Amino acid sequence: MEFILEDISEAEVARRRAVYTPLTDTVRDLVDAVIRTEVPEEDLPEARRRIAEVVADLRTRQMDGPYGVRHTRENTGMAWGNAVIGVRNALAPPIDVVHAADGVRADFTLGAAYEGPPGNVHGGVCAMILDHLLGNAASYESACFTGTITVKYLRPTRLGALTAQAWVTEQSGRKRIARGTISDDEGVTCEAEGVFIVPKSAVDGPSVRWSAG
Amino acid sequence: MEFILEDISEAEVARRRAVYTPLTDTVRDLVDAVIRTEVPEEDLPEARRRIAEVVADLRTRQMDGPYGVRHTRENTGMAWGNAVIGVRNALAPPIDVVHAADGVRADFTLGAAYEGPPGNVHGGVCAMILDHLLGNAASYESACFTGTITVKYLRPTRLGALTAQAWVTEQSGRKRIARGTISDDEGVTCEAEGVFIVPKSAVDGPSVRWSAG
Repeated sequence: MEFILEDISEAEVARRRAVYTPLTDTVRDLVDAVIRTEVPEEDLPEARRRIAEVVADLRTRQMDGPYGVRHTRENTGMAWGNAVIGVRNALAPPIDVVHAADGVRADFTLGAAYEGPPGNVHGGVCAMILDHLLGNAASYESACFTGTITVKYLRPTRLGALTAQAWVTEQSGRKRIARGTISDDEGVTCEAEGVFIVPKSAVDGPSVRWSAG
Repeated sequence: MEFILEDISEAEVARRRAVYTPLTDTVRDLVDAVIRTEVPEEDLPEARRRIAEVVADLRTRQMDGPYGVRHTRENTGMAWGNAVIGVRNALAPPIDVVHAADGVRADFTLGAAYEGPPGNVHGGVCAMILDHLLGNAASYESACFTGTITVKYLRPTRLGALTAQAWVTEQSGRKRIARGTISDDEGVTCEAEGVFIVPKSAVDGPSVRWSAG
């Protein structure tokens, strides 16, 4: 597994982030609009045609495979294709993970595109976000991979404003145990515990303070 | 939690599916293109503007909230906004779940938008898909909810063609235990076990042979 060095300054990372964020946000908006639109069906082929034209233009020059996981010399993570946090990935809510002394935290909003049961977040989406957050908490020294994760659903998670938190409860050798929760304004809706493994190759490698999931 | 009756024929479901599928597929294509494009940055604002115009047109008439979970009188599920299987949701790969005598199965392809570690599926995406598949296997008599799910990662899951399978191993009262796996062409990459609960309200309700997640 190859991580790519982007040999650019922190200012250049910020500049590029500002270029791609509005584009990705607009695609997120489109995903939502396609789910919720009630315009006459006969208008849809034309909408499709216009989107396909943009796709064709964007594809005139593109990378061969997926975006990969990139980082700067300062170990700023640029997992911009990532399914949960990707700046260029409209599937990602995105989750903006903030590091704190006691772990990590993210405040985010999930709309129509994350629905499972009526009006509620898909249980699998909760599992996805918790996997990422716990992995992120466990990656405080070095990127690591999920070994096992257990998610317990206490009650449905309403679509809307949510908070996820995660922290490390135990560590020994290359193994980390992390716990976390998702909460709405009435408290915790689901909780998780995971076992994370630091790859052997990473033990003597650079310190990367982020997780790719 | 309210499920919506769409009082339409199976033929009408199929007709609408054929109308929305190409549109959603093109948005999936756009999501991929935005991650992978290498066109000059100065072209991106114009791409964004053109997408925003389509969004505005689609939003001239739209439903107030999320799509919800709909079904026909014949109990054909129309969870078309669903994050994993939604016909109108570009976030969904989508997973097309096929029922068999011994459980459920889905063959699908995950591209750049589902990346976590370089070239591999995000572990959280595997958890999301397994949650849905296990829930679906457990919903053979009535839609049910995940109580707890444990996912064990055996090795990384390469982006590309994959298969997920799930089956029920135990049932008592309103409780079901299901197991499942995700496999690539070299075998199983991760496995899951989950406890699913049939809601009390559903025990005397209609038989719904699908799960909302």
